Amino acid sequence: MFDIVHRIGIKAPATQVYAALASLQGLAGWWTEEVQGNDQVGGRIEFTFRALDGTVKGSAVMAVEALDPSRQVAWRCVEGPAEWIDTRLTFTLAEHDDQTIVLLGHRQWREEVEFTAHCSTKWAIFLLSLRDYVEKGTGRPSPNDVKIDDWN
Amino acid sequence: MFDIVHRIGIKAPATQVYAALASLQGLAGWWTEEVQGNDQVGGRIEFTFRALDGTVKGSAVMAVEALDPSRQVAWRCVEGPAEWIDTRLTFTLAEHDDQTIVLLGHRQWREEVEFTAHCSTKWAIFLLSLRDYVEKGTGRPSPNDVKIDDWN
Repeated sequence: MFDIVHRIGIKAPATQVYAALASLQGLAGWWTEEVQGNDQVGGRIEFTFRALDGTVKGSAVMAVEALDPSRQVAWRCVEGPAEWIDTRLTFTLAEHDDQTIVLLGHRQWREEVEFTAHCSTKWAIFLLSLRDYVEKGTGRPSPNDVKIDDWN
Repeated sequence: MFDIVHRIGIKAPATQVYAALASLQGLAGWWTEEVQGNDQVGGRIEFTFRALDGTVKGSAVMAVEALDPSRQVAWRCVEGPAEWIDTRLTFTLAEHDDQTIVLLGHRQWREEVEFTAHCSTKWAIFLLSLRDYVEKGTGRPSPNDVKIDDWN
């Protein structure tokens, strides 16, 4: 098993960061503009990622496993890239001084492959987008996300 | 044991990316401005990280374990944050089409702690700095690196 972890601080209350992680509207502000489904526990959220020319680059469906307001959002990937199936995603929040610290875990990859490394860097890009979205009101969700390599 | 991995593509020949990873001058262009030591195999390189006000935030000494021109740079951390001691760092290069793909591994952490998550995000920040340095001639080495949280 292989885990990706990240940490970022956002100058905003945890309630605001939580809203960006736990609602369709929030998620569309920083991860991908194309989000649909049911964002409640037991629901499924579908994320579609496109290139700037509109072609679909990928998609994923997350089952919402836990929502603990201002503390944690937990998903299980149920559809998407083969390497992602049954991986777990958690966003854990804690207020420290004037920041909300977000710990991201994208865990239980069956093995470490080159795509894991790509996704690790890409998660950092999206956490920067999350920070901009919460702090400034404008993130860089797909398809306007920062591209990092020949895969995206 | 816990490993951090990342992947970035740089629009430049591998020789140029390698120079940014294997020489003191190159490293000072994207990781931290304060680099000294011996960048040859068997040598030790000392990296110092400061805040913008000049106070030292941290330092690390890497033993250069392998240099394979245009292919790989490998270090072992011999001094620095306790969690880094004896971790292994590898930068592996491969040219794909018009990009050099860099795979970063920061491996053999004894355990995953919150600092691991911080360093993972920070490595992505520094790989973006490496890309800017190689592609545009200007990176954002410490102390002018993008800050990500309450730790740096």
